[in-house]
Amino acid sequence: MSERRSVLVVLVDRANYGRLKPVMRAIAEHPDLELRVACAGTMVLERFDQPARIVREDGFPVDAEIYLELEGSSPLTMAKSLGFAMIEFSGEFQRSKPDVVLIIGDRYEALAAAIAAAYMNIPVFHMQGGEVSVSIDESARHAITKFAHFHFPATERAAEFLVRMGERPDSILGVGCPSGDLAFSLDSRLTDAVVNGRGAGAHIDVHRPFLLVVFHPTTTEYGGERAQVPELLEALDALALPTLLLWPNIDAGADHISKTIRTFRVSRGQTWLRTLTNLTPENYLKVLANAACAVGNSSSFVRDASFLGTPVVLVGSRQEGRETAAHVTAVPPKRHAIVDAVHRQLGHGRYPPSTLYGDGSVSKRVADALARLTPYVQKRLAYVTGGSPSE
Amino acid sequence: MSERRSVLVVLVDRANYGRLKPVMRAIAEHPDLELRVACAGTMVLERFDQPARIVREDGFPVDAEIYLELEGSSPLTMAKSLGFAMIEFSGEFQRSKPDVVLIIGDRYEALAAAIAAAYMNIPVFHMQGGEVSVSIDESARHAITKFAHFHFPATERAAEFLVRMGERPDSILGVGCPSGDLAFSLDSRLTDAVVNGRGAGAHIDVHRPFLLVVFHPTTTEYGGERAQVPELLEALDALALPTLLLWPNIDAGADHISKTIRTFRVSRGQTWLRTLTNLTPENYLKVLANAACAVGNSSSFVRDASFLGTPVVLVGSRQEGRETAAHVTAVPPKRHAIVDAVHRQLGHGRYPPSTLYGDGSVSKRVADALARLTPYVQKRLAYVTGGSPSE
Amino acid sequence: MSERRSVLVVLVDRANYGRLKPVMRAIAEHPDLELRVACAGTMVLERFDQPARIVREDGFPVDAEIYLELEGSSPLTMAKSLGFAMIEFSGEFQRSKPDVVLIIGDRYEALAAAIAAAYMNIPVFHMQGGEVSVSIDESARHAITKFAHFHFPATERAAEFLVRMGERPDSILGVGCPSGDLAFSLDSRLTDAVVNGRGAGAHIDVHRPFLLVVFHPTTTEYGGERAQVPELLEALDALALPTLLLWPNIDAGADHISKTIRTFRVSRGQTWLRTLTNLTPENYLKVLANAACAVGNSSSFVRDASFLGTPVVLVGSRQEGRETAAHVTAVPPKRHAIVDAVHRQLGHGRYPPSTLYGDGSVSKRVADALARLTPYVQKRLAYVTGGSPSE
Amino acid sequence: MSERRSVLVVLVDRANYGRLKPVMRAIAEHPDLELRVACAGTMVLERFDQPARIVREDGFPVDAEIYLELEGSSPLTMAKSLGFAMIEFSGEFQRSKPDVVLIIGDRYEALAAAIAAAYMNIPVFHMQGGEVSVSIDESARHAITKFAHFHFPATERAAEFLVRMGERPDSILGVGCPSGDLAFSLDSRLTDAVVNGRGAGAHIDVHRPFLLVVFHPTTTEYGGERAQVPELLEALDALALPTLLLWPNIDAGADHISKTIRTFRVSRGQTWLRTLTNLTPENYLKVLANAACAVGNSSSFVRDASFLGTPVVLVGSRQEGRETAAHVTAVPPKRHAIVDAVHRQLGHGRYPPSTLYGDGSVSKRVADALARLTPYVQKRLAYVTGGSPSE
Repeated sequence: MSERRSVLVVLVDRANYGRLKPVMRAIAEHPDLELRVACAGTMVLERFDQPARIVREDGFPVDAEIYLELEGSSPLTMAKSLGFAMIEFSGEFQRSKPDVVLIIGDRYEALAAAIAAAYMNIPVFHMQGGEVSVSIDESARHAITKFAHFHFPATERAAEFLVRMGERPDSILGVGCPSGDLAFSLDSRLTDAVVNGRGAGAHIDVHRPFLLVVFHPTTTEYGGERAQVPELLEALDALALPTLLLWPNIDAGADHISKTIRTFRVSRGQTWLRTLTNLTPENYLKVLANAACAVGNSSSFVRDASFLGTPVVLVGSRQEGRETAAHVTAVPPKRHAIVDAVHRQLGHGRYPPSTLYGDGSVSKRVADALARLTPYVQKRLAYVTGGSPSE
Repeated sequence: MSERRSVLVVLVDRANYGRLKPVMRAIAEHPDLELRVACAGTMVLERFDQPARIVREDGFPVDAEIYLELEGSSPLTMAKSLGFAMIEFSGEFQRSKPDVVLIIGDRYEALAAAIAAAYMNIPVFHMQGGEVSVSIDESARHAITKFAHFHFPATERAAEFLVRMGERPDSILGVGCPSGDLAFSLDSRLTDAVVNGRGAGAHIDVHRPFLLVVFHPTTTEYGGERAQVPELLEALDALALPTLLLWPNIDAGADHISKTIRTFRVSRGQTWLRTLTNLTPENYLKVLANAACAVGNSSSFVRDASFLGTPVVLVGSRQEGRETAAHVTAVPPKRHAIVDAVHRQLGHGRYPPSTLYGDGSVSKRVADALARLTPYVQKRLAYVTGGSPSE
Repeated sequence: MSERRSVLVVLVDRANYGRLKPVMRAIAEHPDLELRVACAGTMVLERFDQPARIVREDGFPVDAEIYLELEGSSPLTMAKSLGFAMIEFSGEFQRSKPDVVLIIGDRYEALAAAIAAAYMNIPVFHMQGGEVSVSIDESARHAITKFAHFHFPATERAAEFLVRMGERPDSILGVGCPSGDLAFSLDSRLTDAVVNGRGAGAHIDVHRPFLLVVFHPTTTEYGGERAQVPELLEALDALALPTLLLWPNIDAGADHISKTIRTFRVSRGQTWLRTLTNLTPENYLKVLANAACAVGNSSSFVRDASFLGTPVVLVGSRQEGRETAAHVTAVPPKRHAIVDAVHRQLGHGRYPPSTLYGDGSVSKRVADALARLTPYVQKRLAYVTGGSPSE
Repeated sequence: MSERRSVLVVLVDRANYGRLKPVMRAIAEHPDLELRVACAGTMVLERFDQPARIVREDGFPVDAEIYLELEGSSPLTMAKSLGFAMIEFSGEFQRSKPDVVLIIGDRYEALAAAIAAAYMNIPVFHMQGGEVSVSIDESARHAITKFAHFHFPATERAAEFLVRMGERPDSILGVGCPSGDLAFSLDSRLTDAVVNGRGAGAHIDVHRPFLLVVFHPTTTEYGGERAQVPELLEALDALALPTLLLWPNIDAGADHISKTIRTFRVSRGQTWLRTLTNLTPENYLKVLANAACAVGNSSSFVRDASFLGTPVVLVGSRQEGRETAAHVTAVPPKRHAIVDAVHRQLGHGRYPPSTLYGDGSVSKRVADALARLTPYVQKRLAYVTGGSPSE
């Protein structure tokens, strides 16, 4: 093949980029591939510190900046943003005409990109399919699977589930999560500036034990976060350990969470609570690697923390159903349960690294899969037909 | 329950209404249910003869008229229309706040409604899931399944496939297609006015053998219709039988099909070809019941014709994978193959009715299922959890 | 200036292109300007024969194809299309980053482009401002004026009106309509193929007297077209002259007009009525130049016909308020009035050319104005400030 | 008239409501009018403290909550939000079918509502037309005028300008700004809780002199706010007076302003700076009435402060061109100029009330005008026709 295959990588939030950065590097370095990048969703928003800037600073092209988030952070605005995203992504695909669109995860912005590409007969390559969780992401993830032409799931179980759901076995081009690639090669030394150079609140001594907290809404329990966040904050207040909190994503309910935290920060926690908006992928992993315990419901605590062995207290239902390594303790969103679990995890200390979600050399395999796949457009439930996806 | 459960039925094209009319009747008559109707897509378009008018004339409420089709009839405009549809449906759901949204089939407009409802935590009741076909509808259908909380598939195989895809068995509330309800109770006598009172072209003698032709685009073969339609038209020209042709739907490629037919109609076929835009559900079935042979790729030829025993020549790949009764002969979109198959079907004559897609008493069961279901919001891939959907 | 100034010309329908073609040529040939072209609205629609193709065949670049027309042709869908247009144009301006956007006329698509550019701080150059007519175009035209930074009106009166409306005199960079440029240099010989090579209906002998008919909706009388079109068609039927009819634009009410014509064409007029979808700018002018009389309400009958001296019967209110040369006779939309006026105009024969709307050398002056203008962003009602627009 | 005329009042921000509250009351109490309210823009956003809640608490109906703000606060997202607004407003007008739409001011959300209504042939009643300012609002205001069928400008000069712009004299139904109605009847006593019960930062002693600061972006100088805000904050820091700052609106550049303030608030100003998100109309006026000096560029400082006699230092170009009473001193956005002007204004003390913008009894006249107007749809530049707007 004399012409390189163009792969449009869709990034819709900071976490996407954290996982795909090594994949983007591998695509950029592959002789048969051409990397293109569309930054959308919170990647371009000032409120989220414009992570697209970091993509550029890391030397990647940013071919499109797509604004698609309707303000409101409610189920209604999430649905409208999804529709708007589809309009904007399809416009970008019309102009860019990529050979393949690469999508990761289960957010509504990613769903929009997958649907737009599939309706425009552009092959979709999906990573992290076949997993199980709570929130509307659970449905979105499997719907993306149903529009994706090629899969690169993170675990063996996820791969098996994809086949059971009717995806052709030969459309699964590999297994593993690239987030491990960064984690396993990480220089985990954390400097004071990374944590205290930005953000607001108490100064955190990075050489003493601290907590890392991330709490996103569970959209299918919309409104429930109004009761859950105070429980979490009360638990943190009772613990009164140095705590670094990252603001939530943009899902329905996030404004409620942010507002509660902002009010709390003023009245209490001034001596131990620091809030941060954004970190580079490497710095995020360093913080996670150095945290004495991670508390909340980010999928990163299930996934990235497994490579690093950081003890995790998983709060509430959001990650229910996901495969977890030994480092995870799940508790309901109740203050005493959270406090007790954090104490237990602090007593236990770090866990050995797990390879449940990948062995640290996934990105190269992803790039090779992208280079060697045979494009096709028409999917079919594999229960009724055999054969290869490209026949 | 003192308050009736409100069910918002989403109708996005003439065929939707043909199938759901008896269900709407059953909902309207059910003491525990309140019927609401949103007409969207081609239902409200003058170019498609505004089938929403017929809904009103049949005595149903039309609570919303949703315009969502961006002109162009290409993969791009289909994707943009889908996004636009999501914006419009979510606005309607915000106002109407229905208890359940009822969706049928696999069109992009239906997909948009399913996603909007699911993201807004409104339970989705889906009919005709689990089937297999070609075109992007194949992916859309399974994606709708992944957002639907309750299923009422048309066949036993479809029900089995839904469970294999990870849907909870107890979320499948019944089996059967309501299109059979109209068909099995049909007074099939066809008058001249139904066929010749509207439309354009040759007069068709309804008491002598005539062909019924419907040919929609297969979006995943976009552009292919430019080659396929002439083959079909050449075949019809060779047959030169009285022929009633219904214009295609609005999918990508439809404009190409319509243009080719329009040009053809002027130069040839003036003595035997009549074109029609729209028929009421009953009149459509009467025409289908009286046709000597149905030619094309409408799913109605697989489904409705099975109840009526009308011989069918299925042209091209669009319905590949669907379960078919004995009345269907599938051929590639090649003129000689079409001509030969029509001759064989005319020689064979009508088939005995089939109950593959329903027994004629489905609508009542659908309404009962809607009345007795226990609403829930959070879905989960059933491979990892048991229990009831409403736990 | 070493870098050329990029001028993005926005074309939203066939008529736009007919007027701007000589301007586009002059921009493309100007050493200090770079021509870019965005085709939007009906320019890209198959139903309107995709006039964008002709732009390409004429050797111009088409940098963007923008689909923005929501089907429905009602006041509601016109308003929604306008909103959609603004979303799409702003996306295109984000990517293209033109130095100036050139807009002509008063259509909603043009209004959308003007607003999007102005809100994005891109200078807007507007042609044909300051005229007076009926329909919502009247308001749209003056609103565009209020967003435009530079004006090139078609007549002296229009220029005067712009100043009276508060536009700075030095923001008016010239006067004249470029449609005259094509008209005054036209080789008006018309061949049979131009008229009969496409379209449908009766064969028109181009060497004998024929009528040219164009009838658009007047959106502020929405619904009124249902009564007006039959009057026009009855008049044509009474005249029974060879008649070439061009389909209406896409404004609210257009579907009613088209439907009425289509029904009429089948039942009557088969011997004298021919319908056409699209003509190149030159061919349109040739047809207009050769018509014995033009009947309807197109602004082209006021403008282009003035250069050519074709007798015009202007039907209804749509052009009320426009300056007209001697060739125009205005009548209400009543059959007898139309018939009488056509007879009078046929009796009169061709008129001498008028330079009311331009002298045939406007395009070069437009390009020069574009090259020499000093960009500015902030407008101000000139009643309160003097000074130059670029201060 | 037996049926009451329905008036849909469009509220797009806190300031809109502050001005229209007495008008809404007068409409609600008028026997011939029916009040409907659509809350859109920042009125429904949690980040702006959802002023729609206050509307409800004040006893008004809120018939629609319209989310239309695309996150980003840039010229691009402002243009896209405008397009989105048009789509959403037209949907609301389709459902509500009001007899008249009442719009105030010059924001893009108001422009969208005016255009949507006009294209849908719904008469538009516009308040505060004919004024002059800077920012894109200047163009938006005059464009709204061109779509409005009836005008109720705030000043005699504004009324005169409307006529000069070609509006029919008899379409101007009255003169005056209803914001004076609240101001002139205000009990201006301010309690501690109003100022210190919400918000963040230093406690403000409301019985001692304090500054009120509001600084919005000037969109046509987009990016310029990055230099201007630090100058303002340095000036405030030099003054070091108790200062109450209200966050800016949502225009392009607002995120830059907010970010700069947030950073500043952490490092300096902790002893004298308090920030607030939202106040009820009455409380806002009380704060303004009690401020020793108002500093910034809100149009409220020109308008509402004129009734109350509060000294104002108007910073930067945003209000250039507006009529001002004696209480206003305008300065460039430079720290020393601001400090000097504040000192001068503090030395001067309060000014006598002005009736430039209204006499305190405007609302009743507005309601009467709404009740007695004769609806019409077709506008025409008055330079060419006389007669009444309803002829």
